[in-house]
Amino acid sequence: MTETLDRVAGPPTTADLERWREADGVARPRRLDGLRARLEREGVGAYFGVRRENIRYLTGMELAEGEEKVAGNSGQFLVSPTEIVVLADSRYTAQAMDQCPEARVERVYHNLVGRWSELLASVGAPRRVGVEAGFVSHLMWQRLAEAAPEVELVPVENWVEELRQVKEPSEIERIAAACAVADAALERLLPSIQVGATEADLALLLEWEMRTNGAEALAFDVACLSGPRAALPHGSPGARQIGAGEVLLFDFGAQVCSYRSDMTRTVFVGEPQPRDLEIYAIVARAQQAVIDALSSAIAAGERPSGRSLHNLAVQVISEAGHGDHFGHGLGHGIGLATHEMPSLGVSAPETSLPSPTVFSVEPGIYIDGVTGVRIEDLVVLDASAARVDRLTRFPRDVTVVG
Amino acid sequence: MTETLDRVAGPPTTADLERWREADGVARPRRLDGLRARLEREGVGAYFGVRRENIRYLTGMELAEGEEKVAGNSGQFLVSPTEIVVLADSRYTAQAMDQCPEARVERVYHNLVGRWSELLASVGAPRRVGVEAGFVSHLMWQRLAEAAPEVELVPVENWVEELRQVKEPSEIERIAAACAVADAALERLLPSIQVGATEADLALLLEWEMRTNGAEALAFDVACLSGPRAALPHGSPGARQIGAGEVLLFDFGAQVCSYRSDMTRTVFVGEPQPRDLEIYAIVARAQQAVIDALSSAIAAGERPSGRSLHNLAVQVISEAGHGDHFGHGLGHGIGLATHEMPSLGVSAPETSLPSPTVFSVEPGIYIDGVTGVRIEDLVVLDASAARVDRLTRFPRDVTVVG
Repeated sequence: MTETLDRVAGPPTTADLERWREADGVARPRRLDGLRARLEREGVGAYFGVRRENIRYLTGMELAEGEEKVAGNSGQFLVSPTEIVVLADSRYTAQAMDQCPEARVERVYHNLVGRWSELLASVGAPRRVGVEAGFVSHLMWQRLAEAAPEVELVPVENWVEELRQVKEPSEIERIAAACAVADAALERLLPSIQVGATEADLALLLEWEMRTNGAEALAFDVACLSGPRAALPHGSPGARQIGAGEVLLFDFGAQVCSYRSDMTRTVFVGEPQPRDLEIYAIVARAQQAVIDALSSAIAAGERPSGRSLHNLAVQVISEAGHGDHFGHGLGHGIGLATHEMPSLGVSAPETSLPSPTVFSVEPGIYIDGVTGVRIEDLVVLDASAARVDRLTRFPRDVTVVG
Repeated sequence: MTETLDRVAGPPTTADLERWREADGVARPRRLDGLRARLEREGVGAYFGVRRENIRYLTGMELAEGEEKVAGNSGQFLVSPTEIVVLADSRYTAQAMDQCPEARVERVYHNLVGRWSELLASVGAPRRVGVEAGFVSHLMWQRLAEAAPEVELVPVENWVEELRQVKEPSEIERIAAACAVADAALERLLPSIQVGATEADLALLLEWEMRTNGAEALAFDVACLSGPRAALPHGSPGARQIGAGEVLLFDFGAQVCSYRSDMTRTVFVGEPQPRDLEIYAIVARAQQAVIDALSSAIAAGERPSGRSLHNLAVQVISEAGHGDHFGHGLGHGIGLATHEMPSLGVSAPETSLPSPTVFSVEPGIYIDGVTGVRIEDLVVLDASAARVDRLTRFPRDVTVVG
């Protein structure tokens, strides 16, 4: 694993991108087999998907984040036991033909409802069709239901998402490459972090470093929060100038060949305050305790649950007197989406984590109006190789800048 | 109008932003009155909204593009005849309290369904509730329906969107400011356009110019397409290097205080080809014909339909022998969303355009595999002032670079 990851430690090359797209082509039939097995178990004759990450996973079609809002029906797909059909209007036909070699591309332009019956007939006239009910609008659902009243629409949740949480080698490579792009961007940003710089300026610079050095997009908008604002669980970088002796929290990630990274580092601007150093040490200890426990379990042939890892981090932080200052979950799966299964939190399932899988480990301590520290790494768990590896390689030591 | 627009011809100042947010505060009660009049006409006791642009318009709450995907129920709102309720989880409570002064903020965290009955009771227990059916998922709709089976959910389309197409003065100012940011960015980019530069590099530079000079975000991803690729109705900037004698098409826009611009310019890199110059002249003539016809109509006290303006552009282009090479609509309204009502296209309504309103006028000629030209300006129509003004100020003359 480590050798593979080191190989992609720089910005991805054209050869990397080609290799990964080829790997997707090889993997898609297996992915489709997984969904088809589920269709058979559930007694459903076809699956209608609209979620952009599921489109990318099963068909190969790449839509940018949010592009599904303007793409009409383009990229939406039907999977039957023997076929995959991808819809595309004239703007997207060439792209769909190119990116979806296994699919039959059907030209649909604002007229899916009118063609629904005929499309279903063309994939074997299923009597029950699973539909991504959390992503199809109610209006669309009603219109499809009326267009083929003899067909039962079955609301579906997480059938593809459950497949996506188990990662293929080339998916892990891409997440690692996205981590490397983010690591290097923060490294290059450090000299620009000075007292008096604004959060917004540094966030934009960090974005620029990623996008000019291998990121095809951001995984999400860069968070850059200074001093007391580092305690905000949500907050956009603003015009606030960074003061001496403050913490500065960066939460950010890159996208490489459709796959994403996510990392948080809290650095110290000028002379660190003892209070902040103490909190930092507790957060780092909590994170390491989770990784150690996970590594020991995997070495012993056991896979812990996401909930047990979360509870362990809570325990370390609580024993240090900050039980009330860690209000969010320990982590989340990541891949085509920034947040996906598995979940590591207080209400996560008590079942074993999947394998191989990639997730974040991101404990934090937040003192309202005072300060905040979070450290977030991505970790790959591979039970069959008995390995747990950090994909985020940026140092976790105390970093003093400015 | 012109004086107002010239006043905001530079990047917006902090004072501009404050003034616009104050204007929104003054306007929101009128906007809500408009929706409440519709509720009364339709016999609906409350309105449940989830679309980010409608959230911004009626409540003041600002979500970034796509943020609604991760914000949970935060920002979603209920309007009754006497109240407005905004939902927010802990991450968004402070923001909602600050940005939504007229609203009662209700803390909802992954439990809207459980609280739905109680929330409806708190706004007068309406028997019929309008719901934005094109934006609420089917899953959410079903759960809300089951949570209060005695309440009829009424699918609603465009009630707020119809209000939004009529623009207030401060909305027009902001669109003009976003146009000015985009105009200036392209002006600054021109020296960087050289033979051999890639589309992707130039797109990123243009984005950078906007975001470091007044744009809080992009209106949409920058399109930068060279040579034969300029004929693509949809296409992402790629690694293609720009050749001498090719056209280079930029379609882009900025966002300023939540409002957006959209413009297209096609420039010539090196010595223009006579074929491209001829096409450019036709497209420019078609655009001018539309603006002239619109101006004449407005001066005569008439408001044409969006369809008639589209048909006029088609006529000019067809008479020049390119009837098969203009396949999209002439334009679209713009404001909080990049594409909104009114529509100017072949299937647009034959009713008069609203006023005051802002829309794009963007004819184009596209010759598959050969070349493409589009020119797009935003135009404000104000019938009561008998004015038609271009908000896009970048020259429309032939521009030769490189």
